[in-house]
Amino acid sequence: MTPVSDRKHTQSAAVGHVTHMTSARQSKTTNIRRRRTRLSGNTTDRCLDALLHPSSVAVIGASRSPGKVGHEIFANIREGGFEGTVVPVNPSATEILGVECISDLATFGGPVDLCVVAVPAPAVAEAVDSAIKAKARAIVVVAAGFGETGSEGALAESRLAERCAQADVRLLGPNCLGLINTGHRLNATFARGMPQPGGISVLSQSGALCTAILDWAQMSGLGLAKVISIGNKADIDEADILETLAADEQTKIVVGYLENISSGERFLRAACAVTSSKPFVLFRAGVTKAGMWTASAHTGYLAGADPAYAAAFKRAGIIRADSLDALWDFASGLSRQPLPRGNRLSVITNSGGPGVIAADAIERAGMKLAHLDGSTVEALKARLPLRGTVHNPIDVLGDANPQRYADTVSAVLQEESVDGAIVILTSHAMTKPVETVEAIAARAPEEKPLLLVCLGATNTVPLAGGRVPVYPSPERAVATLRAMHDYRVWLNRPEQVIVRFPVNRRRVERIIKRHRRAGRLRMSEVDTKKILQAYDLKVPDGAVAHSPQEAVDVAERIGFPVAMKIVSADVLHKSDVGGVKLNVSSAADVRDTFDLLVLRADRGKPAVHLDGVYVEKMCGQGVQVVLGTTYDPRFGPLLMFGLGGTLVDRLDSLSYHMAPVTAEEAVQMLSETRSYALLSGLSDGDRIDFAAIVGALQRISQLATDFPEVKELNIDPYLVGTVGVEPVVVDARITLFAGMDQ
Amino acid sequence: MTPVSDRKHTQSAAVGHVTHMTSARQSKTTNIRRRRTRLSGNTTDRCLDALLHPSSVAVIGASRSPGKVGHEIFANIREGGFEGTVVPVNPSATEILGVECISDLATFGGPVDLCVVAVPAPAVAEAVDSAIKAKARAIVVVAAGFGETGSEGALAESRLAERCAQADVRLLGPNCLGLINTGHRLNATFARGMPQPGGISVLSQSGALCTAILDWAQMSGLGLAKVISIGNKADIDEADILETLAADEQTKIVVGYLENISSGERFLRAACAVTSSKPFVLFRAGVTKAGMWTASAHTGYLAGADPAYAAAFKRAGIIRADSLDALWDFASGLSRQPLPRGNRLSVITNSGGPGVIAADAIERAGMKLAHLDGSTVEALKARLPLRGTVHNPIDVLGDANPQRYADTVSAVLQEESVDGAIVILTSHAMTKPVETVEAIAARAPEEKPLLLVCLGATNTVPLAGGRVPVYPSPERAVATLRAMHDYRVWLNRPEQVIVRFPVNRRRVERIIKRHRRAGRLRMSEVDTKKILQAYDLKVPDGAVAHSPQEAVDVAERIGFPVAMKIVSADVLHKSDVGGVKLNVSSAADVRDTFDLLVLRADRGKPAVHLDGVYVEKMCGQGVQVVLGTTYDPRFGPLLMFGLGGTLVDRLDSLSYHMAPVTAEEAVQMLSETRSYALLSGLSDGDRIDFAAIVGALQRISQLATDFPEVKELNIDPYLVGTVGVEPVVVDARITLFAGMDQ
Repeated sequence: MTPVSDRKHTQSAAVGHVTHMTSARQSKTTNIRRRRTRLSGNTTDRCLDALLHPSSVAVIGASRSPGKVGHEIFANIREGGFEGTVVPVNPSATEILGVECISDLATFGGPVDLCVVAVPAPAVAEAVDSAIKAKARAIVVVAAGFGETGSEGALAESRLAERCAQADVRLLGPNCLGLINTGHRLNATFARGMPQPGGISVLSQSGALCTAILDWAQMSGLGLAKVISIGNKADIDEADILETLAADEQTKIVVGYLENISSGERFLRAACAVTSSKPFVLFRAGVTKAGMWTASAHTGYLAGADPAYAAAFKRAGIIRADSLDALWDFASGLSRQPLPRGNRLSVITNSGGPGVIAADAIERAGMKLAHLDGSTVEALKARLPLRGTVHNPIDVLGDANPQRYADTVSAVLQEESVDGAIVILTSHAMTKPVETVEAIAARAPEEKPLLLVCLGATNTVPLAGGRVPVYPSPERAVATLRAMHDYRVWLNRPEQVIVRFPVNRRRVERIIKRHRRAGRLRMSEVDTKKILQAYDLKVPDGAVAHSPQEAVDVAERIGFPVAMKIVSADVLHKSDVGGVKLNVSSAADVRDTFDLLVLRADRGKPAVHLDGVYVEKMCGQGVQVVLGTTYDPRFGPLLMFGLGGTLVDRLDSLSYHMAPVTAEEAVQMLSETRSYALLSGLSDGDRIDFAAIVGALQRISQLATDFPEVKELNIDPYLVGTVGVEPVVVDARITLFAGMDQ
Repeated sequence: MTPVSDRKHTQSAAVGHVTHMTSARQSKTTNIRRRRTRLSGNTTDRCLDALLHPSSVAVIGASRSPGKVGHEIFANIREGGFEGTVVPVNPSATEILGVECISDLATFGGPVDLCVVAVPAPAVAEAVDSAIKAKARAIVVVAAGFGETGSEGALAESRLAERCAQADVRLLGPNCLGLINTGHRLNATFARGMPQPGGISVLSQSGALCTAILDWAQMSGLGLAKVISIGNKADIDEADILETLAADEQTKIVVGYLENISSGERFLRAACAVTSSKPFVLFRAGVTKAGMWTASAHTGYLAGADPAYAAAFKRAGIIRADSLDALWDFASGLSRQPLPRGNRLSVITNSGGPGVIAADAIERAGMKLAHLDGSTVEALKARLPLRGTVHNPIDVLGDANPQRYADTVSAVLQEESVDGAIVILTSHAMTKPVETVEAIAARAPEEKPLLLVCLGATNTVPLAGGRVPVYPSPERAVATLRAMHDYRVWLNRPEQVIVRFPVNRRRVERIIKRHRRAGRLRMSEVDTKKILQAYDLKVPDGAVAHSPQEAVDVAERIGFPVAMKIVSADVLHKSDVGGVKLNVSSAADVRDTFDLLVLRADRGKPAVHLDGVYVEKMCGQGVQVVLGTTYDPRFGPLLMFGLGGTLVDRLDSLSYHMAPVTAEEAVQMLSETRSYALLSGLSDGDRIDFAAIVGALQRISQLATDFPEVKELNIDPYLVGTVGVEPVVVDARITLFAGMDQ
């Protein structure tokens, strides 16, 4: 079963855009890892070929003792059916599992494609040297005790990588389980035995997850293509593997476990190459603070905040699993069933309770119970006993035999309004689970997904080779269909058209240049507003005043009432130091307020240096929202949207998206926040001007992509009124990255 | 293993309170079910005894054909080891499974304790009659085709129940799987075979869930005490079963599946009887709209809104499972391990990735990674290899043998700062899962919980009889420990002390009486505020004016600015019809506004009858919250708290609690809302007066319990300032139930 893939997107174009934009900063954060990859240059393919399709494999540290890594790897290669040459290297053994042992790889005459180094960390450097001398084209280092242990280990690891790069040899690991390529009958891991061949490939930063997936696959009767444990990623990283798997014909779906990503740019390109033709289900760990610190002890990296990862995954069409159960559930559904065309599901059950549970799960997942057409209802009436329920969820009753199940499934899935089905089988003394599953599978149409739920009785259901995936609860089947549906929506997304607004880019360049030259990276509200104005966001009328009289002049020009705010590079939060006064409504009040603000600043502890007082037209009524951008070191500029005001729990209601965004994506950002439904349903009669927010998001998206120097932009609040009232930037601040020229 | 139960609460007192209060209304909603229960009176115990411990069982409709319900039930009783008399009744068979068949129960000489009716719906009435004639003391009706099919079936069902009640016979079903009592070797169901005896009892409104749990128990090696499928609950309902299970010594934990509850009062009393001595894990389905409608088709009931159920479950200390996975996970943990004393967990793993996943899960569940003491760290250093991680999560490394695992577990659980542990075992060629699990189980202390996670390899782990429960992922183990922790917190909760404030109850009585006599069930803002004032909530100064001059007089007395609002029983939302004017700040404006409001009301379509215009002191600044009560027909008065204002997504941020509440419970209601953390961390310097909100909740709690006539009270908004500023009721409305005297 190949999952449906309706169209191929020109991913490289969309991602190329991001690539271009991020390069300015990326060059600054280039690490040794990136350089190494470049050193190996365009030989990538050849070398990963040696890793995955070697004709000869040497195992340095092969051992006679079962239970030792060196023995288990050698035994796996030997017994997995590998048809090439296998050379055990061990100075103190003459033969292992019937194969003649050599004491030193130098004494081996023939060529060695792949060399698996299975010795402990202290002996690795020497072993790698001998592999390089023997002209190995790829090396796997299994041992832990490198970058994850601290700076000494990291140094040893980087020396290892450097050595391999110089010799043009690709390195997998260290601190990994190895790799499996079922198509090549190669199992170079110390996992238990060779998996059945199939379409699922596994990419994992954790060896444990690889073995867990091997177990799951075996239990579910699913076959695997490649299993690659990338460990510390000294050379080969997730992007290399994804590139390979995207092009691999045996791979129909990629399942991944990652904690961090080495290069956002390369990852996105490679991930999109995968997702444009096959599903990529990914579990990322190290998401919470506790998890992040644990992960940094595990891999030696600090991974960075999850919103950036989440935004990147969304853009790349990666199907994110939030639990290990979900990782495998999604993989199981995606690898055996077509994608649903919509979100209307039918439930077919032989018992009432699980039907109720399924209905709950469908509503909670944002899917729908399909409304069945009259003719389908009639067809069901003809097939079901009198007491059966012919509306969705359909109850075929406890005594349903395989035939009744199959008839119902076939009638329901023929109906136009049904996009997919969940069939629930509760087992009791009268049910025939094996025959029922077989009958259903035989009659299920090819073009709509059908997932089976066997409550409790998963052990009585035939699993091996089954085309219909089996879930232990309705909730998990529904979650899987939701994930499949989301991927379909992503595949069918409109072409990304980034609108470029005519803006005064020069003006922004000048302001930024001036600030960076002066080393003033935190821009004032006034300068930030100038920049936003240059990108056509409306800011209230106003000007900086340096004397009471000047303040009165400004106020009289723009009209009362006015807001007055101190202008100072020293102050981050003006309100906190009493530096803001609203609704100042007469000339006399303006004078008094000017004095008050200046005096307060002088007497502050510490005293605050003022560049003046900003006098600004008071804003009207409206809804406060927050807009912003952050430059993520891995993934480039990230857009942010949320509701403003102090009462909103921001952490929970912010939405992120990678810049640049299309209008559709900006709308999606809005609708993702929990408060959107409420905002759009305000009973005041007038409608909030969502289009204005969308426009503003597109403009700051353009600003952030035009100027990678902008580290952070925060518009808080952006005051949005009803349709027809132009929204306005009430307060805003930009922080810059330090310039090269500083 | 008996789960820890530190103290027994005087539940009857707390619940008795609720009982007393609900009786006023409950008597109005009494249904046939309630009456029937009363008819059987104090014979309940004797009759459930006949159900669970019969010495003779007749099966009407016993059949020779395997696959028929009548055969499977008979075979289960016969082959399950039941030691009493079994009588198959079937006019067309001479013997079934070697037992002589009788054609009519009337021909059977001996006494029949339990009669299982296994004939189809149309033949049930006659069979039940014959069972009653034969002096059966309890009857099980398995057949579907009653209340769940519509009004005709409901009538048949209620006749059945009536007949049994008159004969003083208890009835289980119809539309159920039957029951199992392993202690009595009785399996009167058509599920597959007899489960192993043990401490878990099952109560389910769905037969399918019973069979699923039978399967799960078998797979996990867990034993069962009673399994009771209550079906349509024509007589015996969840409360009857819970009473029985609370007193049952074989039952150590109760696992339940329910869609609706027949009597809130009886359920709460029975549930508390269970939870005060043993855990009660419950899954409720039919929670969403789709689920509720499906459930109503399934059982013939409309269950009511979930917040009331949720509040009742919380009060009763019921451990709620939100998924079927959780139901079984929780039961598995609670039945085999002691409760944790706190939320500090330790993770012991042989691989890094799953440790990261566990750390994420712990933080997300609101639990903590325990900080290990220096001496424990030293002890671990001595036991672990150099590369092992001696801080939490503890990495015992991939080559850990059973001994190293057991040593580590024992050292970690001895530490005072660790309340529980999760041990993760990733299986590969060198691990010995069976020996490891055995070694860990042997060394795990009795007083702290220890949960095992076997990634992927659940099939290689020894399950039968194991004392340590095994989970397939760290997330599910952590969720289980969280549920166990919550139950412990509930057991240790402070005694419920309800403060009774001195209030002017007479005044409220008079206002309510007047409204009910007049049939005016929707009270005006003015009258509602009078009631709230009588319960000592502050309302703004104000009075109703009937002329412009009267309005000016009021305004001048209370001081400008004022708010002016129409007073009318016709209008539910005053703002919607332009009936509110705020910030009226001069005598002239008051006159104009009076005229405007009156004219608007006159010219409205339809015209609105005015009782006057309310002139009220304008409220100051503050945070808007919403307080309220709802009288739930099942569970009595329910308190509600949430953030106010139009921008807050109320559905997601409301918190409910059963009235009456203690101060601690009111604080808990606040802290449960998502916005609480933000409210308490407002950077404005001043602190929100939470104590005032807590006091207001207690007062309206007292109001709602004093007056069950109040169907709904909605204070929206209640304006809360900083500490020291008295909060004020800005707007409020009470709706009453119709009175008897109306």
